[in-house]
Amino acid sequence: MNGHSELRERVLEANLEIVRAGLVILTFGNASAVDRDAGVMAIKPSGVPYDRLTANEIVLVDVQSGAVVDGANRPSSDTPTHLVLYRAFAGVGGIVHTHSPFATAWAQSHRELPCLGTTHADHFDGAVPVTRPLSREAIEGDYERLTGEAIVEEFERLELDPLACPAVLVASHGPFVWGAGVAEAVENAVALEAVAASALRTELLRPGTEPIDDALRLRHFRRKHGPAAYYGQVT
Amino acid sequence: MNGHSELRERVLEANLEIVRAGLVILTFGNASAVDRDAGVMAIKPSGVPYDRLTANEIVLVDVQSGAVVDGANRPSSDTPTHLVLYRAFAGVGGIVHTHSPFATAWAQSHRELPCLGTTHADHFDGAVPVTRPLSREAIEGDYERLTGEAIVEEFERLELDPLACPAVLVASHGPFVWGAGVAEAVENAVALEAVAASALRTELLRPGTEPIDDALRLRHFRRKHGPAAYYGQVT
Amino acid sequence: MNGHSELRERVLEANLEIVRAGLVILTFGNASAVDRDAGVMAIKPSGVPYDRLTANEIVLVDVQSGAVVDGANRPSSDTPTHLVLYRAFAGVGGIVHTHSPFATAWAQSHRELPCLGTTHADHFDGAVPVTRPLSREAIEGDYERLTGEAIVEEFERLELDPLACPAVLVASHGPFVWGAGVAEAVENAVALEAVAASALRTELLRPGTEPIDDALRLRHFRRKHGPAAYYGQVT
Amino acid sequence: MNGHSELRERVLEANLEIVRAGLVILTFGNASAVDRDAGVMAIKPSGVPYDRLTANEIVLVDVQSGAVVDGANRPSSDTPTHLVLYRAFAGVGGIVHTHSPFATAWAQSHRELPCLGTTHADHFDGAVPVTRPLSREAIEGDYERLTGEAIVEEFERLELDPLACPAVLVASHGPFVWGAGVAEAVENAVALEAVAASALRTELLRPGTEPIDDALRLRHFRRKHGPAAYYGQVT
Repeated sequence: MNGHSELRERVLEANLEIVRAGLVILTFGNASAVDRDAGVMAIKPSGVPYDRLTANEIVLVDVQSGAVVDGANRPSSDTPTHLVLYRAFAGVGGIVHTHSPFATAWAQSHRELPCLGTTHADHFDGAVPVTRPLSREAIEGDYERLTGEAIVEEFERLELDPLACPAVLVASHGPFVWGAGVAEAVENAVALEAVAASALRTELLRPGTEPIDDALRLRHFRRKHGPAAYYGQVT
Repeated sequence: MNGHSELRERVLEANLEIVRAGLVILTFGNASAVDRDAGVMAIKPSGVPYDRLTANEIVLVDVQSGAVVDGANRPSSDTPTHLVLYRAFAGVGGIVHTHSPFATAWAQSHRELPCLGTTHADHFDGAVPVTRPLSREAIEGDYERLTGEAIVEEFERLELDPLACPAVLVASHGPFVWGAGVAEAVENAVALEAVAASALRTELLRPGTEPIDDALRLRHFRRKHGPAAYYGQVT
Repeated sequence: MNGHSELRERVLEANLEIVRAGLVILTFGNASAVDRDAGVMAIKPSGVPYDRLTANEIVLVDVQSGAVVDGANRPSSDTPTHLVLYRAFAGVGGIVHTHSPFATAWAQSHRELPCLGTTHADHFDGAVPVTRPLSREAIEGDYERLTGEAIVEEFERLELDPLACPAVLVASHGPFVWGAGVAEAVENAVALEAVAASALRTELLRPGTEPIDDALRLRHFRRKHGPAAYYGQVT
Repeated sequence: MNGHSELRERVLEANLEIVRAGLVILTFGNASAVDRDAGVMAIKPSGVPYDRLTANEIVLVDVQSGAVVDGANRPSSDTPTHLVLYRAFAGVGGIVHTHSPFATAWAQSHRELPCLGTTHADHFDGAVPVTRPLSREAIEGDYERLTGEAIVEEFERLELDPLACPAVLVASHGPFVWGAGVAEAVENAVALEAVAASALRTELLRPGTEPIDDALRLRHFRRKHGPAAYYGQVT
């Protein structure tokens, strides 16, 4: 073991928390965190049941090369997707991937998740986008890496700031969610599932509900984010 | 600490109970109670996680001035909304704000919650109203206070007794719920979420279901409230 | 205390079980059992929170007169409904009333719960009926007794055997469920909620799904009930 | 007791796990496993509550004759269905039958469960089929055995590999799910319920959503199954 024990512990805790929060069953998900100075990502090993997972089994991967730096286990099969996101999104410190039930339903319907209320605006500055489907060539090729590229491409196309909208719905698949650290990524994944559920029920009560207007969205997002934030405690 | 320890304890307990009841995740909610004689409101501090919350951290605020009377923490960012309600609704002793999943879906659809059955009538004497959207000026101005004013205005417009209909849906946001004390406010918040869920499912089974007729609604409301109540024990 | 301690214990346990099973929140429900030989019904006291309920507080009521035989508490406000059912349905030994979420949605939509699958047929021999709305006079009069009469009238009109279809949906209200004993009534209330949920979802997937045909319904009902039953152990 | 204690323990654990996973309430389900060398199946006894079930009560049945080999209890009433599946599907080592809420809704609507996303494709290589309704003669005859025959017939008609699509929806009834062992069968039953829920919600968000294309389906299925699998650890 070449260190990074605090990083491993944080990643272990995040992987356990997404199970406790009801976002993940079986082995449907993974969480990672990055140490930018060391150029190392820590991530869940592939297919290991959560109830037996230990910090020692968390796999360390080099962010640039993708090589396993330490660990006897294979990293999550979604590792190449995480790596692309860390490389492209500078401020991101942690990433969570789940198949949480309601967010997955939006991803499967290829619909972006519209901002229908202040719960959404407290966490995501606008609609959570859905990626465009991958080509057959991409699916049969370097699939996980190209999934990451499709996310980055969508954020570039929409000119989105990844920390203002810290989530995406991968079409026909499910959500990837991130944050300044992995604890924030977990929190955003919890929030995403809650707003995905409320948005579906809003659709049932009033099909085609319009997104909230910009003033309300910005008011709520800026209560919690940026220089004028007044939510929470002064730290 | 300048006292009010019983008030703080009650507010702490209410904040923990809305989490245990499944109405609140992350920091999506807050509960307060008022001491009318002292002119003091006790409320959750802003953004503090529920699992670490202690009675000492509950913040005391002057009901008239809004100034923090005691406590090292910032009060909930929704404090001005609570204060407006305590000033306008004389009999209210406690207030709960949540983003509970089904009540929020009704709020996001800008639909009042109709009284479709006796579970609703046991707690709310008629439809639970939804506020009208705030203007851009209000949103960009003294937003939380004006949210409270919009609630009061709606109750005046509809000539509703706040203790007969102890809840409102703030459009595009979520429910505020109250009661004679904060324990009753929590109970009403639990009931609101249950009837919001049943009402959505009733809508799915029979779109456009009419509210129950006045006789049945009044029978149930008066079983539990007012001089002719015969539900519960003689105390 | 004039005895019936075993009856009280069974009723206490049933009242606690409907809470544990998720059918009841707050004080939205009650369970009773009858001792036919003694002519006595034991029932939950009105409005007493479940977490403090003790066997001593269970109220004993004379089945014919409705008078409280023993107990310092008022019986459930639904007591007259229970009494009518015990008088009319000879084989019934226990009754459960809940506002369980999905069964209540069907009751609020004034739709009978159709038999859409074998889970339903394992417990209820055909559609679970919904009562006709009470008249204004009935609602303003002896409401709880007349609710019971409306149930009995519906079973007579449809020529239903109360033990073959041990549940009803009271329109705009919620389910009453019964059985040979109160433990069976609880089990039937759990089954009713499960089939109410599956039936709503079946309606969403295929609006207007037809009930299963008579052969399949009878096959399943008779696997578990009557002389040819072959489900369970020989006792 | 004539041995097979490890087999019984595994079957006990599977029966308890389907309850813990929320797939089974009351006695709505059963799990079995087979010892191919001994020609013996171990299965839950009929109608015994899960909270009192012990390994000794698990019933051993001869796979070919259906005779009880050991055990004082009657085997599950669904035993003949299990036996038909073990005889027809060579690689199957364990079977789980539940009435899990969302899978049952699809079964009751007589709709196959389409593959709408990668969560589905990770476990089931294509749509999970629904059986054709049994004839009246079959229902009134050797019903449970003929239910098994209807499953096998459907897999033959569709030319499906039972281990590539380890589940079926029995029309108007509910799911049967299997795997190489009974632990895998439980896992597949959990996955089936999750994808049934997401698929229903996808239908609500976009009625008539098309199945994912073949390339994406095969990519995900083959990540986890077959010679090119790269999910999980090398063992």
